Amino acid sequence: MAKVVGSVVSTQKDKSLIGRKLMIVQAVDSKGVTVRPEEVAVDAVGAGIGEYVLLVRGAGARKANRNEDFHDVSDCAIVGIIDSFDH
Amino acid sequence: MAKVVGSVVSTQKDKSLIGRKLMIVQAVDSKGVTVRPEEVAVDAVGAGIGEYVLLVRGAGARKANRNEDFHDVSDCAIVGIIDSFDH
Amino acid sequence: MAKVVGSVVSTQKDKSLIGRKLMIVQAVDSKGVTVRPEEVAVDAVGAGIGEYVLLVRGAGARKANRNEDFHDVSDCAIVGIIDSFDH
Amino acid sequence: MAKVVGSVVSTQKDKSLIGRKLMIVQAVDSKGVTVRPEEVAVDAVGAGIGEYVLLVRGAGARKANRNEDFHDVSDCAIVGIIDSFDH
Amino acid sequence: MAKVVGSVVSTQKDKSLIGRKLMIVQAVDSKGVTVRPEEVAVDAVGAGIGEYVLLVRGAGARKANRNEDFHDVSDCAIVGIIDSFDH
Repeated sequence: MAKVVGSVVSTQKDKSLIGRKLMIVQAVDSKGVTVRPEEVAVDAVGAGIGEYVLLVRGAGARKANRNEDFHDVSDCAIVGIIDSFDH
Repeated sequence: MAKVVGSVVSTQKDKSLIGRKLMIVQAVDSKGVTVRPEEVAVDAVGAGIGEYVLLVRGAGARKANRNEDFHDVSDCAIVGIIDSFDH
Repeated sequence: MAKVVGSVVSTQKDKSLIGRKLMIVQAVDSKGVTVRPEEVAVDAVGAGIGEYVLLVRGAGARKANRNEDFHDVSDCAIVGIIDSFDH
Repeated sequence: MAKVVGSVVSTQKDKSLIGRKLMIVQAVDSKGVTVRPEEVAVDAVGAGIGEYVLLVRGAGARKANRNEDFHDVSDCAIVGIIDSFDH
Repeated sequence: MAKVVGSVVSTQKDKSLIGRKLMIVQAVDSKGVTVRPEEVAVDAVGAGIGEYVLLVRGAGARKANRNEDFHDVSDCAIVGIIDSFDH
């Protein structure tokens, strides 16, 4: 779980990142409390700043990239927008 | 090891997560003490809130998804319900 | 490096974990001091409670499972029993 | 996100690292505050000391290495130079 | 980056580890300050106790093992000896 807190601009980067939204995300718990430092995640679902999102790392992040780029270097991706936390 | 503490509702998400239960889990030790922040895990065994569970991350989580979806983005899954801890 | 501190009983679990010993392990340094929270590891070498062991995570853990189960969900395994630490 | 803080010289190393720039990077947040210890990353985009960069770990780092070396041992790579952080 | 601080003897272990040097390594920063607990790493370059080394984890560690053992369980390897840190 994370909160989208900003975005990153990078012109000189790996080809596989061209044209993709690079967001700054802050891992949080279900009360919105920060639990890990900020990271950069590729946005695969159109999330906006301030939204709570589902975050995956490693190969899962590359599988969110449906255009099958074998050379996709991403290792962190937003794969869902959270509507609610239920306890 | 983790304890199931809630669930997450997400309508706008990666196709591979559709129809799957997204639970909020809290990594614990064998005395039930919290040891890591909350995370979201796909439930593969029908665990309920309050139950202690076996958690796996990375490719292991995707292997719990028996319907062989190459594009499964999940990176954390509940793969067992713990009956007891023995020391 | 870890110390085996207990075991876990789980009846309702992923098929790939059936018949395999699930141990509670505590990552330690070479002086036996605890360095990470407890985790569950599949035992691949017959380690007993109180023994110091070699622990691997991720795909390495699944490679310790010689019966080639593509659906093996394990992500942490005991792959050796430590006789001694030398400095 | 990380800041490039130095470089490493290593003569005796795995073949797959020969001829590649090994930089010391310091993971930071979007305010430039240090958030993780220093690591060594292979530079895939020509980053210089003092620059803020995009860092990836695991298989993503090897995918930045376009000459398809199956034996590439790298597990951390610089894959972009950050122009700006936007909040 | 890590410093080699010792070695481990393990007779009862996974076949893929037989005949390989298992070193105790301590992750450090470029000033030699400890930044993570000790770990066991397979030595792939002939490093000695007291030397500063390049460490890789996960599949990168198995790629340092040139004899292509599909069942190699290692998840941490020494892949270079550091001559100097430059800032």
